[in-house]
Amino acid sequence: MYIEKVKSSRLTPESLEIKTFGNTFADHMLVCNYKDGVWGEAKIIPFQEMSFSPAMQAIHYGQACFEGMKAYKDENGDVFMFRPEKNFERINNSAIRLNMPPVPKEVFMDGLKALLDIDRDWVPPTYGMALYLRPFIFATEPMITARSSEEFMFCVITAVAPDYYAKPLRVKIADKYSRSANGGVGYAKAAGNYAASFYPTKLAREEGFDQVIWTDASTHEFIEEAGTMNVFVRINDTLITAPISERILNGVTRNSLINIAKHNGWKVEERPIKVSEMKAAHKDGSLKEVFGCGTAVVLNTFSAIGYPDETLDLADMPMEESWGKQLKKQLMDIQNNKSEDPFGWRVKVEKNLVNTL
Amino acid sequence: MYIEKVKSSRLTPESLEIKTFGNTFADHMLVCNYKDGVWGEAKIIPFQEMSFSPAMQAIHYGQACFEGMKAYKDENGDVFMFRPEKNFERINNSAIRLNMPPVPKEVFMDGLKALLDIDRDWVPPTYGMALYLRPFIFATEPMITARSSEEFMFCVITAVAPDYYAKPLRVKIADKYSRSANGGVGYAKAAGNYAASFYPTKLAREEGFDQVIWTDASTHEFIEEAGTMNVFVRINDTLITAPISERILNGVTRNSLINIAKHNGWKVEERPIKVSEMKAAHKDGSLKEVFGCGTAVVLNTFSAIGYPDETLDLADMPMEESWGKQLKKQLMDIQNNKSEDPFGWRVKVEKNLVNTL
Ligand SMILES: Cc1ncc(COP(=O)(O)O)c(C=O)c1O
Ligand SMILES: Cc1ncc(COP(=O)(O)O)c(C=O)c1O
Repeated sequence: MYIEKVKSSRLTPESLEIKTFGNTFADHMLVCNYKDGVWGEAKIIPFQEMSFSPAMQAIHYGQACFEGMKAYKDENGDVFMFRPEKNFERINNSAIRLNMPPVPKEVFMDGLKALLDIDRDWVPPTYGMALYLRPFIFATEPMITARSSEEFMFCVITAVAPDYYAKPLRVKIADKYSRSANGGVGYAKAAGNYAASFYPTKLAREEGFDQVIWTDASTHEFIEEAGTMNVFVRINDTLITAPISERILNGVTRNSLINIAKHNGWKVEERPIKVSEMKAAHKDGSLKEVFGCGTAVVLNTFSAIGYPDETLDLADMPMEESWGKQLKKQLMDIQNNKSEDPFGWRVKVEKNLVNTL
Repeated sequence: MYIEKVKSSRLTPESLEIKTFGNTFADHMLVCNYKDGVWGEAKIIPFQEMSFSPAMQAIHYGQACFEGMKAYKDENGDVFMFRPEKNFERINNSAIRLNMPPVPKEVFMDGLKALLDIDRDWVPPTYGMALYLRPFIFATEPMITARSSEEFMFCVITAVAPDYYAKPLRVKIADKYSRSANGGVGYAKAAGNYAASFYPTKLAREEGFDQVIWTDASTHEFIEEAGTMNVFVRINDTLITAPISERILNGVTRNSLINIAKHNGWKVEERPIKVSEMKAAHKDGSLKEVFGCGTAVVLNTFSAIGYPDETLDLADMPMEESWGKQLKKQLMDIQNNKSEDPFGWRVKVEKNLVNTL
């Protein structure tokens, strides 16, 4: 692996205390180019602007996908990734659906480890904070014909993720707009899926909601997922979440929470859940909590659910009663090496690994 | 308008005789940036690479849309655009759906005219060739949070479009994959729509087809459009095309052909057309021709239509009998100022316009 380190780091104590997410980038980035049918050498270089043709395919045809993961620091200063093989599998599933070449495992895994080893000082030591990792693949060929690119770049950039207080969200059930359909790209972390959601989300905001809960495009009868989160509904003592399909993202947090909940002895059902079922449960008092989960927020409870005709309010629950709050703590404790890891999910980033790659 | 011309042109006689589309770029490009809620000054500069942050939103969240149009040269060397106000309207409809700011009319129209005036030598004089114009808007803010960008660039690049012999296409009816759904972004020229189509198109190629005819995502029972073309089906002496909906692109060529056909006194129906209806018409001999149309190819007849169980072959028709071939010639003659323009579609690009803007 080619490595070019920064002459002097941009890291300051303030970098690790930021409050906004997504633009405090660490010193280095990983880049690897695909051309003539092969991936070249992975390189770690200083985080920097890059020069592109205005005809770059990714900008014209959206041939681009990404991943979102985090690295955590424990009390001893050790750095851990969380289930990175899940993100490795998913970025390649996304890539295939968008007709892009899968990234080799060494490039992804060794690349991430080396990058984290070099930028380990950028991983905040504060519980609740993390270094957000953004691997992405995009089409770089300068060619404005609507056909697949033949040149791609795999890149990893990282940004400090604050411990933002996850305020309970008011969500609106989609009854007109849709995010994905059968036969589409909903299960992929495809760039275009996100752009498509911004306008409906803006309209929901104007009505006083924070996010949209997407429903199936054909009937709007089934709950799918929300913004960048999968959704769980707790009716009495059963947690229900939509099954993985070609329309929803197979979230790592979703899967982890299902495992932890089952480990707790709680009942979990992965099955289609109707918008009307949730409403009926609210009416008869069996709807206990509804929450979304994803790498960025970990877990966010919903305080209100907007239907076309009425908005259902959900009371905030204390920790002892809220499965959501308990699951969040359990998951964060595993991620931050504050508890046992019965699932074998943590992956430690060894020191001075760079010299061996 | 700020204008910086190239020191010396890259134009050679060979540039105007190229056979591949999409990477022979003319000397100049137009750029205009949106920041702090306003569009800045439009600039014409030499076609060049640009420097972007690897966190540029367009690459991560697909917030990008484009247009495709052409400029034609007549026998006197005059340059014409074709119905540019349609593309102006459409790029802004796309922009709004993707939560991007609409481009002001002067920036779009005067920008295109000035760019074409400066690069008029790049418009090939050959009938059938053209200068392809690619206006596009994309999100430039360096921010990896899944929310709308607040900075954008509007850009126009142009490329020489060859007179490629439009060989009849073998198309496959989509029965599994889908392009768009109700409530989605199918009607927008959204970047992500194209990436989503590459993989299904590749699979169709592997089965011996050139393109996919998309059907509605819910039932796959209705014909929508194909690749980058709207679709017309001629049953006996009626031309049928799917109605404009939120799922299909409102093609300028589609609309122009409908107008020309009606002007010819031919019967045209804009209505849902079933996959099964086309098959039945083939069986009873009433299916005369099926073709796709779009700015890039103008019009492409289909020689075979692939159903899951069988492939229907369509005979090639001579000009006198083929409505498709006649419509194509009529449209091209209007575009190239070789015939009257009863619809007022041509827009002449005045000379030395640049000095007045
Ligand atoms: C659409 C969507 N759903 C769900 C999730 C949650 O996935 P994960 O738990 O892997 O972060 C994400 C990613 O953050 C997402 O983008
Ligand atoms: C999906 C799609 N359908 C149809 C068309 C045809 O539209 P137009 O005739 O405006 O070029 C295009 C654009 O070329 C397209 O991208």
